[in-house]
Amino acid sequence: MNKNTTLDRIQTLSTKNTDSMYLNDFLLTWDKSEDEIAATFQTAEILRSMRRNNISCRSFDSGLAVSIFRDKSTRTRFSFASACNLLGLATQDLDEEKSQIAHGETVRETANMISFLAEIIGIRDDMYLGAGHAYMKEVAQSVEQGYREGVLPQRPTLVNLQCDIDHPTQTMSDALHLINKFGGVENLKAKKIAMTWAYSPSYGKPLSVPQGVIGLMTRFGMEVVLAHPEGYNLLPEVEEVARSNARQCGGAYTRVDSMSEAFTQADIVYPKSWAPYTVMQERTRMLRNGDLEGLKDLEKRCLESNKRFIDWECTEKLMKTTKGGSALYMHCLPADISGVSCERGEVEASVFERYRVPQYIQAGYKPYIIAAMIFLSKFKNPADKLEKLIKKAEPGI
Amino acid sequence: MNKNTTLDRIQTLSTKNTDSMYLNDFLLTWDKSEDEIAATFQTAEILRSMRRNNISCRSFDSGLAVSIFRDKSTRTRFSFASACNLLGLATQDLDEEKSQIAHGETVRETANMISFLAEIIGIRDDMYLGAGHAYMKEVAQSVEQGYREGVLPQRPTLVNLQCDIDHPTQTMSDALHLINKFGGVENLKAKKIAMTWAYSPSYGKPLSVPQGVIGLMTRFGMEVVLAHPEGYNLLPEVEEVARSNARQCGGAYTRVDSMSEAFTQADIVYPKSWAPYTVMQERTRMLRNGDLEGLKDLEKRCLESNKRFIDWECTEKLMKTTKGGSALYMHCLPADISGVSCERGEVEASVFERYRVPQYIQAGYKPYIIAAMIFLSKFKNPADKLEKLIKKAEPGI
Amino acid sequence: MNKNTTLDRIQTLSTKNTDSMYLNDFLLTWDKSEDEIAATFQTAEILRSMRRNNISCRSFDSGLAVSIFRDKSTRTRFSFASACNLLGLATQDLDEEKSQIAHGETVRETANMISFLAEIIGIRDDMYLGAGHAYMKEVAQSVEQGYREGVLPQRPTLVNLQCDIDHPTQTMSDALHLINKFGGVENLKAKKIAMTWAYSPSYGKPLSVPQGVIGLMTRFGMEVVLAHPEGYNLLPEVEEVARSNARQCGGAYTRVDSMSEAFTQADIVYPKSWAPYTVMQERTRMLRNGDLEGLKDLEKRCLESNKRFIDWECTEKLMKTTKGGSALYMHCLPADISGVSCERGEVEASVFERYRVPQYIQAGYKPYIIAAMIFLSKFKNPADKLEKLIKKAEPGI
Repeated sequence: MNKNTTLDRIQTLSTKNTDSMYLNDFLLTWDKSEDEIAATFQTAEILRSMRRNNISCRSFDSGLAVSIFRDKSTRTRFSFASACNLLGLATQDLDEEKSQIAHGETVRETANMISFLAEIIGIRDDMYLGAGHAYMKEVAQSVEQGYREGVLPQRPTLVNLQCDIDHPTQTMSDALHLINKFGGVENLKAKKIAMTWAYSPSYGKPLSVPQGVIGLMTRFGMEVVLAHPEGYNLLPEVEEVARSNARQCGGAYTRVDSMSEAFTQADIVYPKSWAPYTVMQERTRMLRNGDLEGLKDLEKRCLESNKRFIDWECTEKLMKTTKGGSALYMHCLPADISGVSCERGEVEASVFERYRVPQYIQAGYKPYIIAAMIFLSKFKNPADKLEKLIKKAEPGI
Repeated sequence: MNKNTTLDRIQTLSTKNTDSMYLNDFLLTWDKSEDEIAATFQTAEILRSMRRNNISCRSFDSGLAVSIFRDKSTRTRFSFASACNLLGLATQDLDEEKSQIAHGETVRETANMISFLAEIIGIRDDMYLGAGHAYMKEVAQSVEQGYREGVLPQRPTLVNLQCDIDHPTQTMSDALHLINKFGGVENLKAKKIAMTWAYSPSYGKPLSVPQGVIGLMTRFGMEVVLAHPEGYNLLPEVEEVARSNARQCGGAYTRVDSMSEAFTQADIVYPKSWAPYTVMQERTRMLRNGDLEGLKDLEKRCLESNKRFIDWECTEKLMKTTKGGSALYMHCLPADISGVSCERGEVEASVFERYRVPQYIQAGYKPYIIAAMIFLSKFKNPADKLEKLIKKAEPGI
Repeated sequence: MNKNTTLDRIQTLSTKNTDSMYLNDFLLTWDKSEDEIAATFQTAEILRSMRRNNISCRSFDSGLAVSIFRDKSTRTRFSFASACNLLGLATQDLDEEKSQIAHGETVRETANMISFLAEIIGIRDDMYLGAGHAYMKEVAQSVEQGYREGVLPQRPTLVNLQCDIDHPTQTMSDALHLINKFGGVENLKAKKIAMTWAYSPSYGKPLSVPQGVIGLMTRFGMEVVLAHPEGYNLLPEVEEVARSNARQCGGAYTRVDSMSEAFTQADIVYPKSWAPYTVMQERTRMLRNGDLEGLKDLEKRCLESNKRFIDWECTEKLMKTTKGGSALYMHCLPADISGVSCERGEVEASVFERYRVPQYIQAGYKPYIIAAMIFLSKFKNPADKLEKLIKKAEPGI
């Protein structure tokens, strides 16, 4: 390990005000200050460097991290498990099917019952518009109340593993990837990133990634361009966050109607499918009512509607129109690759393959980003704690 | 941490004879001596205090704790996982659906196969009358035999996480809650506790909690009153345990026919639904025969039968008849709360809400009670071991 | 612990060349050199002795071991969990049902996504002829590539927990059992082992155990005899491995048509059911096409075909024909025991019961064999590392 670099990073970290991250949750990136976002990147990089140099990152002698996955997950599940393990926490999944959660049982009660010795609660809840974030807030308030009432000996902190509004562990990993790719956060200034809708033969994909991207990347002075067909709008309040960020950070946020306009001279492109906002609203209503017939019909209508935009594909031709013909292609994975995972999808196979390794590297930041979020919520003086771990330099293996 | 108090507790613990807890199981509270019950409370309190003072309770460098849940569980599952993690054990769940347990495979074989490196086996098996406890005994005998035959390098010990007869991790937590609430076990003497049936719009709830309560609370010289409608009897042999305890410990055990009689001047009330004994017997037979039609019909009949006792509800009015109108209300959770989780249930919402925090605190003892049961079965000199952990005072986080 | 013996073993281990086990996979025993096989036995025995003497085997401060079970498993699942826990690794199961593995997602992508912090990947994939081993190779190549491309900070190594070709964790445990039973590997020379088919009222059992047995036991100079009814052949290439081993190691490999011929004067018998090769091929095709009707019909035909060989049963009478009437009976468990788990099965109840304890002991080697495979793939100087652990002599509990 280049100890100087890591010690420099620790020095930088120590200058950041992370006081209000301590015993607090990580739900939306725009709830976090500049210092807090920067501290998360620094901590992630320090832990990554320690791990690569076989210095144990174990910070807990024992401790439980609860996960609640209300939707399928591989990448985030393993990233969460990896992050917890790296720090010395054991994961315990709340499988709602195997649990005795009584009909009518309050979220407050369940939240307290699983938290007696929990340090961390990670939640993925991205199925219902207007629900995931609200559920996380309710869990957070419940354990906060439990802590104040003396029910819980510690305040377990929450990590949002994807909700209906934001996907901070994904977008923070994306951003860290960009920072390293472009040689520093200061080099992201004025870079153009095209967050665009892309065609996929599936439906019901959450809006949280595009929302998270426009809500985060506008903070680094980037020129963020959103493109999507009519009807595929994002939540208006998140667009407002993006606009406000752009104003404050000297960047720009614009919305355009075509992929090609967004791609033109872009430094980075992020083409990805998502469901139309109104479809997600209908779907939420139908899921809640158990309206299976309606859901089938909705899926059919939605797939047909999607087909009108089958040419929203990240092709080699489009890539040529980007800055120097070599914009960085990004995806949160798994992507719908034309001719590989489907006939026509989000991206041409040759484009995807050319950027395969960078995408995997991008995904590889996630365990460290999650570990950083956990670390900063549990240690009041994170820089001190990291310095001690490095001085001790216990080998991980 | 008030070190004096904890060291006092360790001192007290060292005077208790826990020899026969070592390498032994915790299946029924009435199998345990006074010293052993007292030692369990002391150990739980010591571990709880250590945890609250950030002193690591880790007693195992590595080790496996196997869990077998034959019924849904949230509270006990998380309490078990928390307890194991606190002591440094990793949990491995035997999911009988994902397991290759051959048709006709003996319990002895499965028990040995999962135990080669297991320190602990936690079992919940409360579905069948006459089966859960018998299954636990068979597993215990199998691993004891395996240990004697040289198959297993250690004797894994069992913790009963609820069977058809007793629910010791629940009732020991309940008792510890009472001890702390009333300022010492000596203050429980002559206190009146009403363990009463209550109406619930569900059926098939196990008898193990009321049985466990009358079988344990009679040991502290309490005046234990059981109340239930005709046909909702408990196992006669457990009532005999209660009677015998009462005789030996200077308390009382009586059975009455009405909730109001039980509540009158009670210091503590524990109103909770359970299934009629004969229904549980029929249900066991039907479950075994896979008689789905019969089960549906039984459920219907049973729910109708329950309805005759819909006025067995813990109301504000009834609470007024208790000692000073302010008896301590207890429940093992989740409760059926009138107007919250069902139209009419075990308890009025205002009563439940007034006692919500004490109930959550009551539930919060369970991880420490389980940890204490594990600890006492694995360390020959528990007081010494705890003293060493405190002297080392490794921070948990 | 007899420290001399363990230190002698470490001394012996240090003379074995295990260089190419480091950062490498354990997929087939015949891919491993004599030194590597011997080193695996020594390491397993050292770890077993350490554990029996309460010396902690913990070699990782933290670290993740991923398991992928594409078939039901109890014994191997718990052995894997036990082995990982013994060394300080946490297991994280990839449950393909709960995972977001996209339609058409490449094995390469999934393999990388679960491996960012994984030290070990254990895989059971024995359902499809021609598939399990191929899948493991693809995963291995994927993580090797990921490591070389800088995607993965370490090379996770694979342990084959049973594929369509070999079941090395089983057969290595079997061999270690024989070595200890006969007092050293040198005493296995010229011992006759009968690996024979046996009747079972089930179908579709993998071929990997008999294949693994003939592929491994021929390396110790044993006289390996395979017996099965017509049509129940093993993979020809594995028989070729057995023949070649026998030539090189001074033993013998022969195939005969009857159980009685194989049993005659045998020192060891291993009677076990498996599916006919051609049935497995048909079954693989049908499983892939989702041909449920075909599968039902195939099962019926196969069970009828099996019935023709109902007298292939390990009886007391047959056991009398073995060397001194007292050959060692082996089974990988669970066995189909006549009159216990089925009407007529692989073995008479009295034979099974007489050898029950040795069989359980045989099964008990598996956690240590797996731990040894992991250890040798992760530590460049395994003898040094073990010596350090013993010198430190941290108690496990």
